[in-house]
Amino acid sequence: MTSFKETLTENARIVTEELDRLLPLEDGAEARLMEAVRYATLSAGKRIRPFLVMNSAHLFNVSKESAVRVAAAVEMVHCYSLVHDDLPAMDDDELRRGQPTCHVRFGEAAAILAGDGLLTKAFGVLADEPTHSDPKVRGELVVEMSHAVGIEGMVGGQMLDLLAEESSLGVNEITRLQRLKTGMLIDFACASGAILGKASKPARHALHAYAHDLGLAFQIADDLLDVEGDEKEVGKKTGKDASAGKATFVSLLGRERARAQADMLADQAIEHLVLFEEKAEHLRELAKFVVSRRA
Amino acid sequence: MTSFKETLTENARIVTEELDRLLPLEDGAEARLMEAVRYATLSAGKRIRPFLVMNSAHLFNVSKESAVRVAAAVEMVHCYSLVHDDLPAMDDDELRRGQPTCHVRFGEAAAILAGDGLLTKAFGVLADEPTHSDPKVRGELVVEMSHAVGIEGMVGGQMLDLLAEESSLGVNEITRLQRLKTGMLIDFACASGAILGKASKPARHALHAYAHDLGLAFQIADDLLDVEGDEKEVGKKTGKDASAGKATFVSLLGRERARAQADMLADQAIEHLVLFEEKAEHLRELAKFVVSRRA
Repeated sequence: MTSFKETLTENARIVTEELDRLLPLEDGAEARLMEAVRYATLSAGKRIRPFLVMNSAHLFNVSKESAVRVAAAVEMVHCYSLVHDDLPAMDDDELRRGQPTCHVRFGEAAAILAGDGLLTKAFGVLADEPTHSDPKVRGELVVEMSHAVGIEGMVGGQMLDLLAEESSLGVNEITRLQRLKTGMLIDFACASGAILGKASKPARHALHAYAHDLGLAFQIADDLLDVEGDEKEVGKKTGKDASAGKATFVSLLGRERARAQADMLADQAIEHLVLFEEKAEHLRELAKFVVSRRA
Repeated sequence: MTSFKETLTENARIVTEELDRLLPLEDGAEARLMEAVRYATLSAGKRIRPFLVMNSAHLFNVSKESAVRVAAAVEMVHCYSLVHDDLPAMDDDELRRGQPTCHVRFGEAAAILAGDGLLTKAFGVLADEPTHSDPKVRGELVVEMSHAVGIEGMVGGQMLDLLAEESSLGVNEITRLQRLKTGMLIDFACASGAILGKASKPARHALHAYAHDLGLAFQIADDLLDVEGDEKEVGKKTGKDASAGKATFVSLLGRERARAQADMLADQAIEHLVLFEEKAEHLRELAKFVVSRRA
């Protein structure tokens, strides 16, 4: 029997292979840009969002060939957001996944363009024929991803996060901020399997509810790691939020209540999956994993 | 009889109205981001790319409702590219269309995010149902735009442009750079009308050839304006390329030959339109306009 860690690692390998195929090295003068793009994308990551895509697709018997393309597109968007968030004008981070951030390694201009290129490529992958035989499905993927990561979604959330340094937010405001900044892409990752599989409304609602609770649990766990985690293990600078004077779930609730809240949300997320029976086993295990991870 | 200038202005008005509709002011904390997005998009521009979309669509009797959405999406992408190109880490420009650039007005972080948001929105607009009743058409628009403005297109061209400051390029290399940086979006703008109208191969080829020559003519005219133009009229800093020591068509060919080359390309562009007869009148006039404009 394989452990969940092994399942996650095997999934990450498959998605990374697909990313490698979709972002081939260039020969010409664009080589340097593609190098930056690949650096930002192919380095080790847990690939949690792609895992959600692959395993939500599994619920509806979607072909792996379809699912892995969407998984790769979602990871491209996630990586672009990290590259732009790490920029000096934004969070100004120098370490990511244990390596120098993209702009430290390739310069700011290349990092901005690498992010732009990744975002652009992600939409192209979703819309292209190999992703699904039905063009309506491909269109729905593009529309939903655009909504999830745009001004009313991830990008808007990042803006709120930047403004948060100037004001003191309460729990409700932090919840909304994180819902936009990280929750909506997680939500799209879960929804994409249902879109690919033309799932029924009840199935879509169940996945949406799962994603909602999982996303929040994930964020609280992230805040806890920022306080409790070891910098080497986490692979990025820790203690950032506190030193920036930023309100987080942990600063507002305290570590104990934050931990309890994360566990409660993970349990709740798992309960939403009941109608999928044993097919959702990996999604259940993921919910447990995100609140127990050390990195 | 309306002059071409009036036709261009009327078209710009229609597209700006659509952009205003597609990018509505927000109430909440995202208000500041949407303000930056609208600042970067709704300010006066000639809207040449949207004009190409509207008038290539006109060749195939595409509805105005369809065409104007694609025109707006193309302009969003153009505006995002300007916002990112103007950033301190890129071209570091402080003036655009006669106004402070987006990052000067709203800060660097907001400008990066506004660009990201615009690019994301553009793909969502293309893929959404009101753009065309046939989802295959919408998918083709997304795939083609992703290709035109991604790593092998506009973003790659901008990278080449940044690297060009460190090397001395010849005419062939400058041509390729400009083909990527500005040519491919102009090409997509022309192709989009054919995609919307499910045009025949010969029609698509003709438009492609027109776009190719027009794009190059446009760029040479732009280089000439950088040398000859009045800063107030042009609305951005002039003489930039020379002071940056950048090779341009003008520095390589001299003003006289560059002017002759631009005129020749515009004539050639017009010749490609012969099969569209009088329906392509506006596209012909545009070719004349781009090489004679003063701003």
